[in-house]
Amino acid sequence: MATKEKRIFSQLKTEIDAIVLTNASEPNLDLSFFYATGIVNGLFEDCVAIVTRRGVEVLSSELEELSARLAGAKTTVFQTRKERDETLAKRLKGYERIGINSRELTHANYQFIRKCAKGARLKDVSEAIGKARMIKDAQEISRIKKACDITCRTAEEIPELVREGQMETEAAAELNYRMMKLGAAGPSFATNASFGPGTAEPHYVPASRRLKKGQLALFDFGASYKRYAADLTRTFVCSRASAKQKEMYDVVLRAQLAAIDAIHDGVRGKKVDQAARRIIDGSRFKGKFIHSTGHGLGLSVHDPGSISSARDMTLREGMVLTVEPGVYERNFGGVRIEDDILVTKKGCRILTSAPKEFLVI
Amino acid sequence: MATKEKRIFSQLKTEIDAIVLTNASEPNLDLSFFYATGIVNGLFEDCVAIVTRRGVEVLSSELEELSARLAGAKTTVFQTRKERDETLAKRLKGYERIGINSRELTHANYQFIRKCAKGARLKDVSEAIGKARMIKDAQEISRIKKACDITCRTAEEIPELVREGQMETEAAAELNYRMMKLGAAGPSFATNASFGPGTAEPHYVPASRRLKKGQLALFDFGASYKRYAADLTRTFVCSRASAKQKEMYDVVLRAQLAAIDAIHDGVRGKKVDQAARRIIDGSRFKGKFIHSTGHGLGLSVHDPGSISSARDMTLREGMVLTVEPGVYERNFGGVRIEDDILVTKKGCRILTSAPKEFLVI
Repeated sequence: MATKEKRIFSQLKTEIDAIVLTNASEPNLDLSFFYATGIVNGLFEDCVAIVTRRGVEVLSSELEELSARLAGAKTTVFQTRKERDETLAKRLKGYERIGINSRELTHANYQFIRKCAKGARLKDVSEAIGKARMIKDAQEISRIKKACDITCRTAEEIPELVREGQMETEAAAELNYRMMKLGAAGPSFATNASFGPGTAEPHYVPASRRLKKGQLALFDFGASYKRYAADLTRTFVCSRASAKQKEMYDVVLRAQLAAIDAIHDGVRGKKVDQAARRIIDGSRFKGKFIHSTGHGLGLSVHDPGSISSARDMTLREGMVLTVEPGVYERNFGGVRIEDDILVTKKGCRILTSAPKEFLVI
Repeated sequence: MATKEKRIFSQLKTEIDAIVLTNASEPNLDLSFFYATGIVNGLFEDCVAIVTRRGVEVLSSELEELSARLAGAKTTVFQTRKERDETLAKRLKGYERIGINSRELTHANYQFIRKCAKGARLKDVSEAIGKARMIKDAQEISRIKKACDITCRTAEEIPELVREGQMETEAAAELNYRMMKLGAAGPSFATNASFGPGTAEPHYVPASRRLKKGQLALFDFGASYKRYAADLTRTFVCSRASAKQKEMYDVVLRAQLAAIDAIHDGVRGKKVDQAARRIIDGSRFKGKFIHSTGHGLGLSVHDPGSISSARDMTLREGMVLTVEPGVYERNFGGVRIEDDILVTKKGCRILTSAPKEFLVI
């Protein structure tokens, strides 16, 4: 298993002496900092990682020292920002080309690095970092799988946990509770439990709406395990389903299975997206699949990589992605079915085992 | 109640035609986007807010359109990034000075704004935005108070929820569950439940450690309510306490009360920090209070503002801050006591009502 720094440097197209990764304040953290350092615990606000071909050094506040050392990272502790800046300037001395991670670096921290790297050229290497992060190693896959297992065991309990009259926030509470009881560090993103009209909004936030007979109930959630995310969506109907709800579900499920079926090493994401979209656009729900088919999954629930026509890319063995077509109709509701998959040579391995047959709860 | 855009513009020291706020992918969101737009739901990845003295316009993806409209924001929907970029360029045409929020803007998005704002000068206005966000209006205070109330009702249940033999992750699950059942959208940050040696690490992440007799048990958690955060810490001892644990608790509590006592409109944060630090450094735990006394609280659990010697500032009426001294001793444990307060003319209003007498659970 190549070290993370080797995997990043092997993706670089130009010569780089060192890469500097910096966190701002939560939520503006650079997840690639955690990728490169292997640190599992802590926030590491205002901390820095210096990544070279030879290894990684963390400049850590005293607050996070223990977390850094527990992760086995080479650590230098600073007491003040001035001390941090001076240490960084010293380390970067003589380097001519410094890599920065523009996509996860604040502009204020760009200027801080600019100041510390006097005379050096700063070069955006976020694409190389993204490419390295896209291909998961065995440890990453095992962490994602564990997150998926916790999520799916929770999903299987939905018919018992959710019932008519329950509020969306209560249902979300039940899911989070189960995931954490099963060993999750927490939810990997804010759990979405939406009922009825709320299901028509893909990024809905649970509110006080109560589940009524005949309503769609959508759950989009995932466990976080050792910083890695799972991301699952299942949709049900409460008590009794209408013909239109069944049809909507059937169309989305067929679209999702077609997309999964199209995945293998070397396929274009666009082709996978089209496999799903073709089925939805060939149904009465034409034009109602308003987002892309999937996204990368890893340290972030929206990791680099996508299954999309707009942001087309070639899927490669070792990538972990979501497959999540959906149909949304205002004032009626929506259906989304989402699984997490690992791209393999000939196809893909589905990491989320929760059942997805149409189910009335 | 002045609009958010008026409050931001009133803090500017130079002439600015418009401020552009942009989100990248989660977690790299600009919380000031949500501040300026008033949007409560959704992620709004890759979406843009254009803020002028006359109002706010959101450039939204179709995915988030409903959330934007529900919030009553003036909204223009884009289908592709190209469309978004062209719309932004059109809106910014003729403007000479564009404000950017460097502290929450990715460097990649800085370059995107740079491209769209041809000919204009980009000026960092993050300090002005931070100053506006520091002084909370009535609606913000009421949301924070609600988040605090949910958090405190949960804290009061800790003696029943937590018991010997329970894992840290299970205890964290119980707290999150209770908060959500009481109406929280979720935890405002990853709940920290730490037992024994884990309490010595301020940013500990709960693991599979089980609570044993005689151990310290520290809970740092908060509810999120309509995007606003609470942040509370309470520390207990399981079953029976040692004299040293009691002494540690007593020192921290005295330090915290001294800090709270020192707060009023016009006081320097440094003075408040020193009030707490003096007590700890005058005890056998000298030098073991390894972080600052408090931080701003609002849309982020680490909002602009601090009670700190290193980052000194004057506390003003309407600011909401945490007061959270702590003492940490490796291989023994730590105690932290944290409340959220609203600075008033003559003192402060404590927003978190949970009891903080020394308690064996």
